[in-house]
Amino acid sequence: MSPGRFITVEGGEGAGKTTQIAFIGDYLQRAGLSVALTREPGGTVLGEEIRALLLGHRHEGMALTTETLLMFAARAEHLERVIRPALAAGHWVLCDRFTDATYAYQGGGRGLALAHIAVLEDWVQGDLRPDLTLLFDVPVEMGLERAARRSAADRFEQEEKAFFERVRAAYLQRARRHPDRYRKVDATRPIAEVRAEVECILAEWLERG
Amino acid sequence: MSPGRFITVEGGEGAGKTTQIAFIGDYLQRAGLSVALTREPGGTVLGEEIRALLLGHRHEGMALTTETLLMFAARAEHLERVIRPALAAGHWVLCDRFTDATYAYQGGGRGLALAHIAVLEDWVQGDLRPDLTLLFDVPVEMGLERAARRSAADRFEQEEKAFFERVRAAYLQRARRHPDRYRKVDATRPIAEVRAEVECILAEWLERG
Repeated sequence: MSPGRFITVEGGEGAGKTTQIAFIGDYLQRAGLSVALTREPGGTVLGEEIRALLLGHRHEGMALTTETLLMFAARAEHLERVIRPALAAGHWVLCDRFTDATYAYQGGGRGLALAHIAVLEDWVQGDLRPDLTLLFDVPVEMGLERAARRSAADRFEQEEKAFFERVRAAYLQRARRHPDRYRKVDATRPIAEVRAEVECILAEWLERG
Repeated sequence: MSPGRFITVEGGEGAGKTTQIAFIGDYLQRAGLSVALTREPGGTVLGEEIRALLLGHRHEGMALTTETLLMFAARAEHLERVIRPALAAGHWVLCDRFTDATYAYQGGGRGLALAHIAVLEDWVQGDLRPDLTLLFDVPVEMGLERAARRSAADRFEQEEKAFFERVRAAYLQRARRHPDRYRKVDATRPIAEVRAEVECILAEWLERG
């Protein structure tokens, strides 16, 4: 039995990630592959508890270092209990956000030195990196408008726009630096068109082996 | 106003740390100093929640990397919200366990590479190190007997003795490597004798400035 592959899905607010992940999972299953669907932060009992701490304390603030260490604590557990065992058992792991999100949000968005993230990445992951990362990209304005339509708008205040611009720029930089595994998808188009492009990418990628 | 000093108290199970911390706090207050008493893991609202995760999941196990990152996440918050502000305001901070405990328990006890701990220590603490560390040392057998007398004995099973031996050895090694700030106290003696020695150490240390 060959080990599974590790696919991550990234993108900012309102990029349509959740919808597309469902399509990706479905596509891989139709290709006869066993798919394990998971998410970060979270993915384990302890990880979901850490996620609750991260979300629950978001408004009152938390030191940036604390936030980053909690992210990697949840990730270490996720890797040990879910991702590595699933890959070893031949499952394909499809993960909603992974370490690229830490580079984008804590690094790009909040300004944490990328070297700190790189040290934790090497320690916690060893050699493990995603085999394929799909980045769903939309301009910040459009993403925030879409996100506001599905939840209370006040979380997306104008003053935060610069933050999301930095997140987007960091994602695009990651994609340029890792062209081997990154596929950028223009997510401004209608869902069906985005889905068609994703299926093309997956077909080409599966073909390549 | 001069900044306060940072004193940590370390030691294994049954070393009498808790009792002696109360004496130390009292001694410093009698010397006219303003004392902030705190503990790790914990020390903040978020830190105590992380402490609960660490203790709550202890029996079912947690990846060693996860455990260490959670410790440092709580520590980063503790430093940012409590320790640094208190020191800046001129308070003397008296902390029940700090990073030396991570070296002893996760490093010595569980075998985590010390280099990983050192990287996190430098990142999270910057240049901040305790000004004085009191290590209460007892042989493992005696410490476990004392600890068993005050709580259920089954937590201290024979199979864990080797773990506590490694913790003690790691503490003693830290003390030898940092003689400038470490004071080792022989905690096998009666409480009053240990207290008298601690007061001598503090008097000499305060004298020295």
